[in-house]
Amino acid sequence: MKACLDCYPCFFHQALRTARMITKDEKKILDILNKVSQLLPQISFDATPPEIGKEMYTLIAQMTKVSDPYKTIKQECTQKALRMYPEVKRRIKESSHRLEMAVRAAVAGNIIDFGAYAEFDFHKDLETVFTQDFAINDLPEFQEAVKKARRIMYIGDNAGETVFDRLLIEEMNKPTQFVVREKPIINDAVYQDAVEAGLDKAAEIISSGSDAPGNILSLCSDEFLEAYNQADLIISKGQGNYEALSEESRPIFFLLKAKCPVIATDIGVPQGSIVLI
Amino acid sequence: MKACLDCYPCFFHQALRTARMITKDEKKILDILNKVSQLLPQISFDATPPEIGKEMYTLIAQMTKVSDPYKTIKQECTQKALRMYPEVKRRIKESSHRLEMAVRAAVAGNIIDFGAYAEFDFHKDLETVFTQDFAINDLPEFQEAVKKARRIMYIGDNAGETVFDRLLIEEMNKPTQFVVREKPIINDAVYQDAVEAGLDKAAEIISSGSDAPGNILSLCSDEFLEAYNQADLIISKGQGNYEALSEESRPIFFLLKAKCPVIATDIGVPQGSIVLI
Repeated sequence: MKACLDCYPCFFHQALRTARMITKDEKKILDILNKVSQLLPQISFDATPPEIGKEMYTLIAQMTKVSDPYKTIKQECTQKALRMYPEVKRRIKESSHRLEMAVRAAVAGNIIDFGAYAEFDFHKDLETVFTQDFAINDLPEFQEAVKKARRIMYIGDNAGETVFDRLLIEEMNKPTQFVVREKPIINDAVYQDAVEAGLDKAAEIISSGSDAPGNILSLCSDEFLEAYNQADLIISKGQGNYEALSEESRPIFFLLKAKCPVIATDIGVPQGSIVLI
Repeated sequence: MKACLDCYPCFFHQALRTARMITKDEKKILDILNKVSQLLPQISFDATPPEIGKEMYTLIAQMTKVSDPYKTIKQECTQKALRMYPEVKRRIKESSHRLEMAVRAAVAGNIIDFGAYAEFDFHKDLETVFTQDFAINDLPEFQEAVKKARRIMYIGDNAGETVFDRLLIEEMNKPTQFVVREKPIINDAVYQDAVEAGLDKAAEIISSGSDAPGNILSLCSDEFLEAYNQADLIISKGQGNYEALSEESRPIFFLLKAKCPVIATDIGVPQGSIVLI
C-alpha cells in the first residue's frame, strides 16, 4: 500500500510523539520536527508508509542518540499482556470455536500501538475487540489453510501484542516461525520482546533483517526471504505489515484492527474494523 | 499566545485541507505539502499561530494562484446563517436575559471554522452551544462594559459567523466598528462577507489592514490601530483573534469556542468549552 497525502501530517504527529518520549526540551523537539520537515520532501511518496517511517524514525534516533525510546513502554505492555494470558487462554480453551477465539485474541492484541493512531485503553479496547464483529472474516479459508499448513510464518507487530500472537500460535499448534524486527523501531517487537512474551516456547523466533516498521520485502535479509518463500501459510499481523505486504502475491492472511483511516479505506472497511483477510 | 509544538502537525492538516479545496491533482497537493515542509523550519515558533498561518496560506495562494479557495464555502455559510437569523433573533427577543442570549448566539456562530479543528455539524453544534454552560463567563463585567461603552470595536472571525455577530451587535445597540480581514485568508470574513451578512446595517465595517488569520497588531494598518486605541470596549471573536491578542492590554473581551486543545489549555478550560473572558 502506497503512502497517501493523509500520511503527511500523521508523520509529524508520530515524530512529535516520539520526540516527546525522548526529551522534554521543547527546542530539541522543534529541531527534530524541523529536520523531519526537511527530510519528507526528499522522500518519494510512491513508497509505502513503513519505508518513509523507517527514514523518519532513523533520523530521530540519530539526532537524539536514543535508539529505543519505547523500550520501557514495550516491557510494560508485555507484562500487562502476560498478566492477561491465563484468563484469555482459558476463554479460548472453553470456547466452542477455539480457533476463532484465538484469532480474536490475536487481533485484540493489535490495539497496542504507538505508531499512527496511538490512543488506546488497554482493557476496554481489548474487551471490545473480543465481542466486535469482523468487517471481513475469511475464517473458513484460514481454518482450512492452517489445517493444511506444514510450516507457518507469523510476521509479528508490536511488543505486548506478541503475547496474544502466542495464544493463536499455540492454538494452531503447527511448526511456526515468528518474525520480529531486526532493530528497535517504534514499539515493534524485536527478538528480546518476543522472548519476554514467551514466544520462544511456541515458535522459532526469526528476524526480518530489517528495522522498517512493516515487513518490506526489499529491505529484508536473504535468510528471511528464503523462509518467507518456503512457508505455506503466512500470517501478517497489524497495520505496518499490511502496508508493506498488501500487494504481495504469497498466501498471506492479514489480521489487524484498522485504526488508521487510510488503511481502512484501502481495505474497504470502516475505521476501527477488525479483519481477517 | 505563542505557537506550540502541537501546532506543527496541525499546520500540515490545514495545508492539506486547503490544497484539496483548490485541486484534485495529488502531485500538486504533495508539492504544496513539501513546500510547507520547507517553509516551517524557516519560521520562528516564538510567533503566534496566525503569524505562521499567514505565511503558510500566502505560500499556498502563491503556488496555486488561487487567492480565495474558501469563497464558495464562505458564501454558503453566510446564506445558511442568514436563513437562521429570524429564528435566532426571535429567541433573543423573547429571552428574559437578552444580552446573554445574544452572546450565546455570537459564540454559537464560532462553530463555523475551516482552520484548525474544522469539523462541525452546523445545526447540531449550534444548538449545543445554545444550551451549553460557559466554562468562563464574565457576563456581568461584559454587561457593565457594554452599558458604559460609547464606541465598541468588534473584531470579526469567520464568514457566516458574522450573521451571529450581527445579532449581538444589534442587541448591544451601540456605535460599533466591525473589523474584517483586509484580504481573504481561510474562511475569515472580508468586507464583502460582512456586507453579505448584513453587518453594514448594524455597524461600520472596517479592515484590520492585514490578512493574517488573527488580528496581529504589528501587521495591522495605522488606521486600524487608531480606531483600536480609541475604542472603549473591544470584543475579540474566535480562536485566531485570541491567539493574536491574548497578551494585549486593552479592555478586550474574548468570545469563542475553544475547539483547539492548545487554545483550551492556554485559557485553562476543557476543549470544546465556550468562554466569555
